[in-house]
Amino acid sequence: MAAPTAKEKLLAGSLSLIREQGFAATTVDDLCARAGVTKGAFFHHFDSKDALGVAAVEHWSRSTEALFQAAHYHRAADGLGRVRAYLALRKSLIRGQIPEFTCVAGTLVQETYASHPAIRAACADSIFGHAATLVDDFAAAIEERGVGGAVTAESLAAHTQCVLQGAFILAKASGEPRRAVESLEHLERYIDLVFNVKQRLRSPKRRRSP
Amino acid sequence: MAAPTAKEKLLAGSLSLIREQGFAATTVDDLCARAGVTKGAFFHHFDSKDALGVAAVEHWSRSTEALFQAAHYHRAADGLGRVRAYLALRKSLIRGQIPEFTCVAGTLVQETYASHPAIRAACADSIFGHAATLVDDFAAAIEERGVGGAVTAESLAAHTQCVLQGAFILAKASGEPRRAVESLEHLERYIDLVFNVKQRLRSPKRRRSP
Repeated sequence: MAAPTAKEKLLAGSLSLIREQGFAATTVDDLCARAGVTKGAFFHHFDSKDALGVAAVEHWSRSTEALFQAAHYHRAADGLGRVRAYLALRKSLIRGQIPEFTCVAGTLVQETYASHPAIRAACADSIFGHAATLVDDFAAAIEERGVGGAVTAESLAAHTQCVLQGAFILAKASGEPRRAVESLEHLERYIDLVFNVKQRLRSPKRRRSP
Repeated sequence: MAAPTAKEKLLAGSLSLIREQGFAATTVDDLCARAGVTKGAFFHHFDSKDALGVAAVEHWSRSTEALFQAAHYHRAADGLGRVRAYLALRKSLIRGQIPEFTCVAGTLVQETYASHPAIRAACADSIFGHAATLVDDFAAAIEERGVGGAVTAESLAAHTQCVLQGAFILAKASGEPRRAVESLEHLERYIDLVFNVKQRLRSPKRRRSP
């Protein structure tokens, strides 16, 4: 495998720095120091820090897309099984330090949505593009289990990304990754309830005295 | 009512600026210009921009606490009714421009959780402190409706904040506040399902041919 180029090192370093300290707090000097490249190399590849911001999100989308495309959850036989396996995978990815498992696009869009339209657009593509990869599985689950009403595959897919993004914020605020896992468990329970999977939600006391 | 002091103007201006462009991107000059005060006045009240950051979150917590304490949702007769009225209120607050309805603490913690421990702590107090105001209502609903198992009042309360924070990110990424409202509707449906409120989730086609 060829050694990473300056551009690849800048992109990889930007994903770490943005997840550690956000975009505005990250300077071109920080990016060059993390990547171990010169400022000349930076401006050879990127016209500005904003251009790097857009490229960083696109790089993030490509690398996460590859990870999820190669994942085993697609192998489940039915739509609900694939959705549940996807959520189990997302829970398993919440480990290690917070910058290792949180989302570049969610962090970036929070601070740039109004001031940097091109970055906002790249973040929207990343978040809703990833949500779109779940729509077929949700649609299959809806068909298989005869669910309808106000619940659509598109809105369930977007909601999974909502809960993931919110879960990362709870983890950051508390410093406790388990807070994120707990919210994903609520999302798993919601999806099971929507698709009529049997739940143990009665209190034991009430079950003994009906 | 007395005219706002320089400190009050700086705190109010900081809430707008943080919600518009994040914390790192906001300079002391921006804060003074928005508040219409001098830099001398700024440093009379705050030792640093970081000190203003902590004070801004505390100001945010106090003002949102006052808003929610005075809200009508507490009047519902039962716990589930209060939770549902709280969520209806949260949906109704998602209107106007994005900086007007998004969360100062959620935005701030995203970019400062690792670099600014005092700001992170203030954001955690704000988010989990607000979640704590819902625990009694969830506990009453659990008792009233005989729900138990893995669902606790504390975790449901934290999850409501997770969904709100994630919903704001979807709104920022898409530029569409309705995305946030849709995720809150999923949260309402989840809570109704957990508490065994009847749902219309069967597809009409399946209902006609059992």
